[in-house]
Order: sequence, then structure tokens, then C-alpha cells
Amino acid sequence: MTATATQPNNILVAGQWVAADATDSYSSINPATGEKLDELFPVSRWSDIDKALDAARDASRIMRTLPPQPIAEFLNRYADAIEAHTDDISAIATLETGLPVKPRIADVELPRTVSQIRQSAAACLDGSWRLPVVDSKNNISSVLEPIGPVLVFGPNNFPLAFNGISGGDFASAIAAGNPVIAKGHRSHSTTTRMLAELAHESIGPDMPAATVQLLYGMKGDDGLRMVADARLGAVGFTGSRRAGTALKQSADAVGKPIYLEMSSINPVVFLPGALGERFDDILSETATSGLMAAGQFCTKAGLLITVAGDTTDRFVAGLVERYKSSPCATLLGEGVMNGLTDSVGILKSAGVEVLAGGSRASREGFAFDNTILRTTGDKFLADPHTLQTEAFGNCTLVVDARDEDQVCQIVSKLEGNLTGSVYSATDGSEEASYQKIEPLLRERVGRLLNDKMPTGVAVSPAMNHGGPFPATGHPHFTAVGVPASLRRFTRLACYDNVRPGRLPQILRS
Amino acid sequence: MTATATQPNNILVAGQWVAADATDSYSSINPATGEKLDELFPVSRWSDIDKALDAARDASRIMRTLPPQPIAEFLNRYADAIEAHTDDISAIATLETGLPVKPRIADVELPRTVSQIRQSAAACLDGSWRLPVVDSKNNISSVLEPIGPVLVFGPNNFPLAFNGISGGDFASAIAAGNPVIAKGHRSHSTTTRMLAELAHESIGPDMPAATVQLLYGMKGDDGLRMVADARLGAVGFTGSRRAGTALKQSADAVGKPIYLEMSSINPVVFLPGALGERFDDILSETATSGLMAAGQFCTKAGLLITVAGDTTDRFVAGLVERYKSSPCATLLGEGVMNGLTDSVGILKSAGVEVLAGGSRASREGFAFDNTILRTTGDKFLADPHTLQTEAFGNCTLVVDARDEDQVCQIVSKLEGNLTGSVYSATDGSEEASYQKIEPLLRERVGRLLNDKMPTGVAVSPAMNHGGPFPATGHPHFTAVGVPASLRRFTRLACYDNVRPGRLPQILRS
Repeated sequence: MTATATQPNNILVAGQWVAADATDSYSSINPATGEKLDELFPVSRWSDIDKALDAARDASRIMRTLPPQPIAEFLNRYADAIEAHTDDISAIATLETGLPVKPRIADVELPRTVSQIRQSAAACLDGSWRLPVVDSKNNISSVLEPIGPVLVFGPNNFPLAFNGISGGDFASAIAAGNPVIAKGHRSHSTTTRMLAELAHESIGPDMPAATVQLLYGMKGDDGLRMVADARLGAVGFTGSRRAGTALKQSADAVGKPIYLEMSSINPVVFLPGALGERFDDILSETATSGLMAAGQFCTKAGLLITVAGDTTDRFVAGLVERYKSSPCATLLGEGVMNGLTDSVGILKSAGVEVLAGGSRASREGFAFDNTILRTTGDKFLADPHTLQTEAFGNCTLVVDARDEDQVCQIVSKLEGNLTGSVYSATDGSEEASYQKIEPLLRERVGRLLNDKMPTGVAVSPAMNHGGPFPATGHPHFTAVGVPASLRRFTRLACYDNVRPGRLPQILRS
Repeated sequence: MTATATQPNNILVAGQWVAADATDSYSSINPATGEKLDELFPVSRWSDIDKALDAARDASRIMRTLPPQPIAEFLNRYADAIEAHTDDISAIATLETGLPVKPRIADVELPRTVSQIRQSAAACLDGSWRLPVVDSKNNISSVLEPIGPVLVFGPNNFPLAFNGISGGDFASAIAAGNPVIAKGHRSHSTTTRMLAELAHESIGPDMPAATVQLLYGMKGDDGLRMVADARLGAVGFTGSRRAGTALKQSADAVGKPIYLEMSSINPVVFLPGALGERFDDILSETATSGLMAAGQFCTKAGLLITVAGDTTDRFVAGLVERYKSSPCATLLGEGVMNGLTDSVGILKSAGVEVLAGGSRASREGFAFDNTILRTTGDKFLADPHTLQTEAFGNCTLVVDARDEDQVCQIVSKLEGNLTGSVYSATDGSEEASYQKIEPLLRERVGRLLNDKMPTGVAVSPAMNHGGPFPATGHPHFTAVGVPASLRRFTRLACYDNVRPGRLPQILRS
């Protein structure tokens, strides 16, 4: 299955690994060195996409008629297979992303991935996502049903847990009874190929062979066309705001549900009493959130809102010291490094002060100096749009408000975010301040935290990994948390006066 | 509160009836005569809209903190008030819409409206819409919360049950804890004023005065601007595909949730065995669905798919006879009449045969001759897009398929619809045919019916008044059916490590 240096890898379409109808090919790059890796991957023409869409549509009609068991068995077999290949998957994922095997890929992300798939399988079996309603008097019933083939675009920053072929969107789409077409991310294509091979081998005899399909590259225009295709039920996307909004516009024009997870700067408000009480702990938590995995999390604390004063100055000085003394981790790729350079440039043009870092690191591979930027509440309020530019990576902006009222003004200007946090004194002395800030922050974020950094996203049924635009496309849905994440890939199906023997099994009394 | 002939009515903004900042004014028209009615209504400038949005945002922040009781009490008081004014509301609604007091406005629509409001009040009290999830181990919880101010555009065809100030969107938005700004429909503005007065008077002392606001006309550009405004949480719209898609585009560009109910031609498939068995009953049901209220329902059976043969020919002849011999009811207004004229023109240009009607009725007011159009399956398949042009009003298109396979091909070309029906033999002889057609129809409609016309929309918890685009904007949601309809006007709010005393009441253990 592995490509030679001149032959791009096959794509997985209609149950077969076949040569792509390719216009071009590309390689993944080792971000730690900047060197090309061996395998070549194809950029498909529309004909490949067209075949995948046909096969997915046919698979979808079969999957809708299946009981949950074979679907759940497929997911569990696949989870077992990933687990059994922990070492080789971790090795290649690390090579492609620069994320360490330990404590990241093998210790955290792979177990999380496997757990998500198993939780989705359990929800598939127990039907907890379906919300059936039966009105016997009127002989009307309704239930959530699979929405149809789902196209999943995974991001660069989680080669397993959000991969289009193994992540949360994948697992929830399949568990809700839909075939998936995964669009592999360029930055970790070999990892994706290995996962797809395991997925393909895990498909049981009762499942359509096209339950899982994989495409690698495609032209931008073909991507826009694909998300609007009538054969597709929905789209899941995790990635940049620029790519996400372009896909959204194309999908929206034809009313195609598209679930996006895009940009988020994850504001954290530090009330003075909290810093006074727990200075060292908070400093440590903040630096960890900003620098872990080079800050390449959707939920990195990117915007710190403080209240001007001596303690805040000491806090910022402490952060600067931590950022300067910590090694800067390898970024996921050249694109991230260039994007970070651009974002820092935009923020500098808007007048922020550079307290640490601010430019590309002087070492091999793709890396950026750990960066702390600072501005005042007045400057933020003068240009809140520009000063909310996401700097994806190891960069943090501190906005120093004059007072608590200005904190409220700043929070009132925030765009939608995945998360928002407030640190406050535990002795109750800042309760009134909290009650002023909370309503403003609450309506702008999907997950509200107290005294905690937002970086970790527990796979809990109560999790909301979602939020108002531009964090996502719709604040009603979450990408993490079973069974809610499955409901994105469903439509409400009502049966009115339908003869009993023709009803879905779950609606038969 | 009633306007003189020269002074437009006041608008309801921030709890007060105030003079509009008007660019222009208009009158409702009695569609039975074409004559202008007495009252004048203003077309607001942006400044009115701006004030309403400010007041709604402030009201929203208060409503979020309220327990359910005062909200439910408001709704119940309002329902009682509407009921107590059945006679005067029905009289004016009839004058403005041409819909009869009996058996429509006073007998059916007003009781339905009151029932919807009371069901929403009950759901507000019982909290069944909120889906709380508590993960004690991780100290994370989540719950659906009000989404923020909701702008509701009601349609022309239900002056009460879908009115922006009294209909299903209104009641569900309020019951989920959101203030509503209603945009009154031009065709029944006096009815809307009377309802708004009752709503305003029903607001208790514990509720924000701006819980309910009312604007009448606004310029098209201001409507597009308003749906994208950051102060708004969501939009509900029922109306034409043209207006709905324009608003959708504006809302989508800023990721604002917009729930649309637009066009639907509600295909009905008649398998030959059903006509053979129950010819007279089916003929009668079909004619009633097509002609009741001059066919001005979202769920009128607009596209009849038959299989060519003698029985079908007799069935179509029977329909023609019914359509010709039935009086043509008054249409809701000149716009509907012109729209119907245009649609019939488009269908004629695409080659359909006119078996009955086809042009404006030769009598006072706005009316169109009951119209039956017919075409073949071959012609439909040659231009399925044009032949799905919605003809809103008393017009029905019969598509005569060559055979059952062609029925499947036709169904495969259908756009999204609110409903789809199949009539088949009850002796089981057409079960195989049903099983071929059903999967194709199921994925294209929100509500699937057997042996029943789609026209009636029961207010049942199991109802889905929704479906794939362009019937609506998202197939996961329903506009009718409590509590599901409330969930449209919510966002998922997660609390992570939030101190117990700061949690919403429903999440405190």
C-alpha cells in the first residue's frame, strides 16, 4: 500500500484502494527538520470525488436499514485495531506533526481517540441520540435519523482525535448511521493512510464497503463544489476560519448542514483578588495553557484580560519570564508558522507591545519564539476587531483593562468563542464583579469556566465543544460529548399515519 | 391606538407604543374587494429597528435570570386574552385575509393559536426543552439556554397561528426565555396590532416591558441588516423562498441561526392499487387538500405523482371536474395572485397541459380559477427544476409516470419538502413498490405520510413541520411540536468547574 517515490498512494473509494485520477501530488513534511517525507499523495480530480459521492449515497441507503449492532461492531473493531497499532501510528504521527509520542500522541491523544470511538459505538447501540417521540392518539411519531453521507475535514493539530478518518466527527457520523468520506489533511497524510487501512479492514460483512472512504488532496474549487453536492447529507469541518467560512458559504447556499469548528481566542478574565490569592498557581496554569503543544489547541487561552495594577504587572512579568525561559516547541508545519507570523504582524500594526518573542525561531524546522503581546483596554476598545485576530500557536495577548467596568466593555466586544474563563477570589469578595461579567461572557462562549484554563476538553456527555460564530457555525451543537455530538449528523424524521409494519424499529410500539 | 386616515399606527418598542420614524406608510387591503382598509401602518427607518434591538438585548439579559413562572404566566394570560377577543380578532382577520370566520379563523386557527401558546407555557414550566446533562465526576454540566432576542417574520397565510406576534415561532421563542421582535406582515396589519396590544397588556410586572416588540414595514435592506445584527440571537421566518433565501444569506454570513419555513410542493404518490381500492375517498381528499383556503397552505398537496393508466385518467378527470365545479376562494392578496399567475406561466412554458383554470378569476377582488395542470414523467425528468416551481394557491400539478420505475426516478429528482405522501393498496400487493419508493422519498421530506393528505399539521409533540432545504434551512429542527420547536431558540451552554452557587438553578444538584 505504501507508495514509491514516484507513485502517489491510492485513495479509498467504494471499498477499494484505487489509483487516484490525480492532477498533482504532494508529500508530508517533517516539521522538525523541514524535510519532505517519502510518501506521495494524490490531488484528486472531480471524477474521484464523484465516484466517492455515488458510493457514499448508496452506502447511506444500506446503512439506514441496518440495526445498530454491525455499526457498533465496526467502530469497536476499529478502536481495537488503532490501539493494537499504538506504536507505529504514534511514531509516524510524531514524525509528521512534531507532537511528541509521550506525553502526547501515545499517552493522551491515541487513548482519547479510541475512547471517543468506543463511546460513540455505545451510543449507537443504546440509541440515546435518537430522541423518539410517539403520539399514539394521532398516530404520529418522530425520531432522529441519519442525515446521509458526511464529508469530514480534519484539522492539522490533532492527527488522531480530530482526524477525518478517526476523530470525533468521524465517530459520531458513523455511530449515527452515516457513511463518511474523509478528506485527509496534508500535514499528516501517512498517519491518515494508516488509520484508513485499519478502518477499511475493520468493516464487517454486514456493512457497506463504502462505509469509510478517503480522499487526500483536492482543488479548492472542487472542495467548494463537493460540500454543496446533493448526494451529501452534511459536512464536518475543523480548521481555519478562512477555509471554514469559504466552505460554509458554499454549503449555506444550498442549505447543506455544515458543522464547523473554526477560530477561538478563548478569553480568560483574571480578577485582581484571584491573582492576589493564588499568584503562582495561576501563573503556572496560564503559561502551560499558552505553551503546551506550542499553543496549537482550539482552546488555548489566547486572550488574557487583566485589571491594571502592581500585581498584574508582576503576573505579566512572570509570564514573560516563563515564555522566554521555555523552549519553543516545533510547530505543525510551515503554514502554521507563516500564519502566526502574519497574525503577530497584524497585532503589532494595531499597536500591541511585544514583551517576548515575536518572530521565527532561529533553529531548524518550523518554530516561533514563545510570544507575549500586551496592550491596554483603551487600545483594544479602539479596534476590537483587529485585536481579536487569532494567533494560532505559541502566542498570547494580554489586554490590561483600566478597571472592572472596562473589563465588561472589553468582554462586550468579544466575538463568539469556544470558551471563556473567569478567575476570581475564593473568599466571595469578587462575587459582585463576577455577576457583572458573567452574563456578558456567557452569551459569547460555548463553555464557561471558573478558575481553570480551557485547554483540556474532557470527552464528557456534558461537554460543549462549540459556541457562537465564528467559533462554530451554530451555537446549538457540540463537536465533543456523546451522544450530543451524534445529533449533528441527523435529521428529524416524522411518520404520520404510516402503517405499523413500515415504521422504523424504534418507533414500533 | 387606532390610526386616523392620515396618521400611521404607533409601533411597540421598549414597552411603549410610540410614533415610528417612518419613511412611508401603507394600508392593508381587503382581498375580497381589492379596497384599502382604513388604518395606516408605518415603514420604519433604521433608528426604530436600532431602538428595538437595544431594548431586546437588555430584556434578554433580564429574562435569562427569571424563573419560568412569570414567563409562563405571561403566555397564559396572553392566550386567555386572545380567546376573550375571539369575535373582534376573527372579524378583522377575515376582513384582511379573506379567510372565513367559520370554519377557519374562529373555529380552527384561533383555538390552535391559543393551544400552541398554552403548550409552550407548559413546556416553559416543566423545562422539558432544556436537556440538562450533569457530569459530577468532572464537575462539568450543560443545558440548553435562551439564545437571545428573536426576530420573527410571520407569513401571509396564517394571520394568527404563524403571526410573528402570536404564532408558533413567537410562543416557542418566548417560552425558551427570549424576547421577541415581531415584524408584522403587511397583509394583516390590523390583526397584528390588536394581537400586539393584547400581548403588551399581558406582560406582568416581573417581565421586562420589551419582552414583546412590534415593527410593521421596513425597507428590504434594513431587514437584511437587522437579521445580521449582533444584538439578535436568532431569526424565525415563514414565507416565500425568495425572501427567505435573501434573509438566510445575510444571516449565514455572520453565523446567525435563522430558522426558515419556505417553499414546499408536498409530493403525493398514488400507486394504482390505492386508486383501484378507494377511488372516491382519495379523489375527495385530494381535491380538498388542493382547494381548501384556496390551496394557501405550506402543506398543500401541490404535486401529484401518478402511474399512467385508465384509472389514473379517471382520477384526473374527477379532479378536473371537482376543481371546475368548486367556487374559487379569495386569495390572501394581490401578491399571491400575481405569484400564482407567474408560477403557472413558468409551468406552462415548461410544457404542462392546463386541464382546468390557469388564469385570474373574473370577479371582484383577488382570485384565481381553480387550476389543474398535467404533464408526463418524461417531461418532468427533462426539466425537474422548473417543474418543481411552487404555485402557491389553488393550483395542482399532476405528473403521470410511465411506470413504477419512473415514479422512483421522479422522486429522486425532488428537492427538499416539508411532506411526502404515498397512497398504496391496503392488501399488501404494493408493499414491494412502497419499499422501493420510501427510501427515496424519506430522505427528501420532513414528514412522511401514508394514505393521508399532508395539509393538516397537528400540534403534536411528535410533529415535524420541517424538512430539507429549500423547505427549511436545516433538517434537524421543527417549527411545530412542543418542546422540540423551543429548542430552535436555544444554544448549548456548558459550565466547567463553575462554582455551585453560580450555576443556573436547573444544574444545581
